[in-house]
Order: sequence, then C-alpha cells, then structure tokens
Amino acid sequence: MKHVISVLVENKFGVLSRISGLFSARGFNIDSLAVGETDDPSVSRMTIVVEGDERTLEQVKKQLNKLIDIIKVQDFTDKKFIDRELILIKVSATPKNRNEVITLVESVGAEVVNVSSKSITIEETGDPAKIKALFEVLRPFGIREVVRTGRIAIGTEQEFVLDNKSEKENKKGE
Amino acid sequence: MKHVISVLVENKFGVLSRISGLFSARGFNIDSLAVGETDDPSVSRMTIVVEGDERTLEQVKKQLNKLIDIIKVQDFTDKKFIDRELILIKVSATPKNRNEVITLVESVGAEVVNVSSKSITIEETGDPAKIKALFEVLRPFGIREVVRTGRIAIGTEQEFVLDNKSEKENKKGE
Repeated sequence: MKHVISVLVENKFGVLSRISGLFSARGFNIDSLAVGETDDPSVSRMTIVVEGDERTLEQVKKQLNKLIDIIKVQDFTDKKFIDRELILIKVSATPKNRNEVITLVESVGAEVVNVSSKSITIEETGDPAKIKALFEVLRPFGIREVVRTGRIAIGTEQEFVLDNKSEKENKKGE
Repeated sequence: MKHVISVLVENKFGVLSRISGLFSARGFNIDSLAVGETDDPSVSRMTIVVEGDERTLEQVKKQLNKLIDIIKVQDFTDKKFIDRELILIKVSATPKNRNEVITLVESVGAEVVNVSSKSITIEETGDPAKIKALFEVLRPFGIREVVRTGRIAIGTEQEFVLDNKSEKENKKGE
C-alpha cells in the first residue's frame, strides 16, 4: 500500500539523509520525495510517498518522532488531502508533426514551455491519474526526458459535510 | 552560489540517503530536493538545489559519478534550462474576505483548490521569482501552511540562435 507522509523538519545539515536512511533501513522503497522550505526558511517540509506495510510504517513514524530535528510527522493515509505533482516532459517533435503535438498538449490542459527543431518540452500539474494520462498521450511521439517533482500533499478541512456517508464517499473519490 | 544538479539514478534502496549524505558530509546545505520516477520505473531523477562553492561541488560531482547506482550527473550551472516549482499554500480566509482572496489569487494566475470556512488552499506553478511574488501577495492574509516540491529543471536546446551575444542575453533572462 502507498502511504503519503508529510514531515516538518528543522532545516539543518544531514536531516534529509537521516530521514531517508530511516525508511531504507526498514526496507521501504521511497517512491517519491519532495523537500522545500516553508514560509520560515529555517523550517522545511518533506512529502514522502512510500510503499510498505502499515505496522513497519508505524515503527518508522515513532522513530521519526524521536529525531531531534523533526517538528511534526503527518500520515495522510485515510485522511482527506489534496495531492499534486509537477512534471516536465521532453518529447520528440519535428517541424512536420510539431503542430499535432502542440494541439494535443493544449487539448489535455498541459502547457508547452519550450520548442526546438527536434523536441517540445511540456509542463503539467495534476494528481497521479492526470499525470499518467499525459504519459499515455505523449508516449507515441517518443519521450526523450522526464523530470517530476514527486507528490506533495496538504490536508483539507471538510466543513460542510451533511452526514458520515457522504464524507466517506468524498474520501474515496479523492 | 546556488547550483541546480540533476541526477539520474537506479531506483534502489538507500540511493537517496547515500546521495544526500554525500552533500551533507561536504557541508552543503540542500535547499530543495525533488525525486520522482522517470518513464522507466526502475530509474528515478533527482533535482537538487544546493548552495556552496564551486570547487567542493566539483568534488561532490566526482564522488557521485563513482556511486554504482548513479547513471548520470548533470550540473545546470551556466547552462540553459527551464526550472519550475509547484507550491500549495493554505491561507486564512473568512466568509467575509473570501472573495477578496479568490479574486487576488486568480488575478496573479494561481488556482484555488480548496475552500473551507476558515481557509483557502491555493496551487501555483512557476519559477522561483513567481513563487516569491505569490508569497508576498498572500502574506497579509496569514499563511497557515506551505508545501512546496522544490525546483525541477530540464535542459533546453537553443537551435535558432543568431549569434553568441544574443545567446548570452537569453541565458541571463531565464
């Protein structure tokens, strides 16, 4: 099962390798990891997507909470959250099929950020399903380079819920 | 000086902590780090932004190239590239000033992704300057939470350059 973990840390030397080391020592593979400063430059937030069993994850979370530079650990598993990822994809495109690629890219709501005589670079932001769909659409042209940020996530407050049932349905739909 | 480094790695246990450990051992602070799979799930790409002197960075790059799981190290310093970052920001907003926030957010080209009775969550993609401008605009409302991916970068091919001078001017403008 995939877990999305958000960790607020003091922006200090080595904290990143200590945290990723904790996961790899327990046999977790890190699917993606994104780290950036918060509004306070001395504090960073890491969003980690890992695959592994729940019990081992509980142990990792306990160990994380013991690390001195860690301010807060949030596990979004079973929580309501919004997740997004940014991706840059360079695909092959010649002057001959360039317009076809550009029209296609714009029709799926992505953005062309660079055009050369041999390639087109595309930017897209979305949840994992949207990113996957873009890959499928672009693959036939020949994907030359892919750079993605990994997922980031933020909790959502659900304030206007009518009853428990619709709450659960909302969760599934996210 | 800030350096943007892109590293193509075999997607294996512990590679992330070995790489980040190399930087921290040399006293580099990692400003941001983004890791995601490429089109080939066995290969990931890390984009690392670090601050430090050029000579030490050369040593780190040499050490990176020696690591068995590293396929390619690219240093975008003095190269032409496009960089982008994704950010989610939650700001305080009451029903009273909600419309003001939404209008402002849309006027700068960002997107509202969630509204609750106490807050609004905003998504924005851009280069560091654009992200910084968004912060300034939102700060007066009260920033509650910030999650950012860190920068990702992709090289651009400049094919239609008239002369060396305009090439250099283009570089500065990026």
